[in-house]
Amino acid sequence: MAEPPIFDKLALIGIGLIGSSIARAAREFGAVREIAALDASAEVLARVRELAIADDASGDYAQALRGADLVVVCAPVGVAGAVAAQIAPFLEPGALVSDVGSVKGAVIAQMTPHLPETVHFIPAHPIAGTEFSGPDAGFATLFRNRWCILTPPEDAKAAALERLSAFWTRIGARVEIMSAEHHDRVLALTSHLPHLIAYNIVGTADDFGEETRSEVVKFSASGFRDFTRIAASDATMWRDIFLANREAVLDMLGRFNEDLTLLQRMIRTGDGQGLFDFFTRTRAIRRSIVEQGQDTAAPDFGRGGN
Amino acid sequence: MAEPPIFDKLALIGIGLIGSSIARAAREFGAVREIAALDASAEVLARVRELAIADDASGDYAQALRGADLVVVCAPVGVAGAVAAQIAPFLEPGALVSDVGSVKGAVIAQMTPHLPETVHFIPAHPIAGTEFSGPDAGFATLFRNRWCILTPPEDAKAAALERLSAFWTRIGARVEIMSAEHHDRVLALTSHLPHLIAYNIVGTADDFGEETRSEVVKFSASGFRDFTRIAASDATMWRDIFLANREAVLDMLGRFNEDLTLLQRMIRTGDGQGLFDFFTRTRAIRRSIVEQGQDTAAPDFGRGGN
Repeated sequence: MAEPPIFDKLALIGIGLIGSSIARAAREFGAVREIAALDASAEVLARVRELAIADDASGDYAQALRGADLVVVCAPVGVAGAVAAQIAPFLEPGALVSDVGSVKGAVIAQMTPHLPETVHFIPAHPIAGTEFSGPDAGFATLFRNRWCILTPPEDAKAAALERLSAFWTRIGARVEIMSAEHHDRVLALTSHLPHLIAYNIVGTADDFGEETRSEVVKFSASGFRDFTRIAASDATMWRDIFLANREAVLDMLGRFNEDLTLLQRMIRTGDGQGLFDFFTRTRAIRRSIVEQGQDTAAPDFGRGGN
Repeated sequence: MAEPPIFDKLALIGIGLIGSSIARAAREFGAVREIAALDASAEVLARVRELAIADDASGDYAQALRGADLVVVCAPVGVAGAVAAQIAPFLEPGALVSDVGSVKGAVIAQMTPHLPETVHFIPAHPIAGTEFSGPDAGFATLFRNRWCILTPPEDAKAAALERLSAFWTRIGARVEIMSAEHHDRVLALTSHLPHLIAYNIVGTADDFGEETRSEVVKFSASGFRDFTRIAASDATMWRDIFLANREAVLDMLGRFNEDLTLLQRMIRTGDGQGLFDFFTRTRAIRRSIVEQGQDTAAPDFGRGGN
């Protein structure tokens, strides 16, 4: 027998890669009875209607939020405050409001002042995604075996937290709970810094003339292409992340630069033993990631010779 | 009807990922009549005999090189000179000697003094690989649709160059010819710098205490894991590459640092437009790489939810 739905009505604000994946997963795994989709773009809403991944994609805020006991904001971090202000008048008393933003401290600071005291606000961040964007890019299994971090405020109701955990578990994720501040430091290291570095190295290549650029493309299988994938992610989303998590990102970047200065010196002085030791040490982390099911061990990510 | 072999006997010196892939591919695509394998490690040779990917893996240099009209050195760049000295006495007059090293200038400088004038030396570098090492890691289709760069000396015989090109084409690669110096600059950008950065960011994570390290592993799907894959490559190989291509790597690293300083300033000063423009510009390179068949367009490298 199928498990009963966890929420009655889910309202999603923003139907990009993550929003449309939540819609598809919530329906496929029976996590909610009904789904309403809202988006700032009429074009996106039209596409959502074509894809038929929501029950209501009319764009009417009052209608979409009426009876919604779970409201998930899936908009870029930079507009979280504006979205909160826009939905606030229509939120049902007792509704659980959440989000999926990659930065938590700034989102909480932006959204909280607008939300009525009658709702439960529990921010969330599913660690899942691809380099593609928009409602067509989503899929129901995006969250399978991925972590979803919840950062409840200190006064959060246990029942609300449990229900949101159950929702994410139902659609495939594993749930972890931590403070917003801790989240922002960990993600600065595991996500924001890697993206910044990837954007930067692709930018370095782009600085060269056309001839070198075409050679870079041609011979990219030698390492470069892996960086271009994550540097192809949505520009608006990443601009907002770096601005919203400025302090933690700058701190991690400082540590990264210290290490890079050491490696640079080892190369310049010909310290082969130092380089070898450094390169050996970093293999252990890769092994742990594969062992814990966070990546495939297939060579080349399983590209299969592509 | 099958094409006739391009060489009579291939001798491979060093049977790791690349050497064992060449052995498998040369046999599968009928590029040579006979294959002899040599390796500094008796263990590797024993494994080559078990895998039966060469006709002769006895380890006898005189026997392996007798009648070999193609000799390919597949050892780490740092031992290229020593290997050249070791094989020199046994090389047949007129034999074509090549290699697969990721750096060309230093390899040419190390090998040339040892090689007899009766052989043709044409260095090569197939832009192919995975993060795995050793004779078990190789496969016959590793070079399919990948570029192989040849860096012939100015006085190279056209016939020898054509024959080596034909060999690489037969085993699946596309051949490009350029100077060793140009190769070393292009690869410093497309391969050596990305690997250095990847090793460095994994090292930055490793500097943290155990608790943070375990969180880094847990939440690595957010970007970090892509870096750990290329930072899991062979430590000896990469130590040698950075030492052998020191000048070009330090030059590219300098450019990378300049760009990173600009991005850092944009974040610090809150220059959202600057960040957005930068992140938009870098998408074009990704598109070219996918269009030219140098990577898959499947989301997440086609990991399929892993």
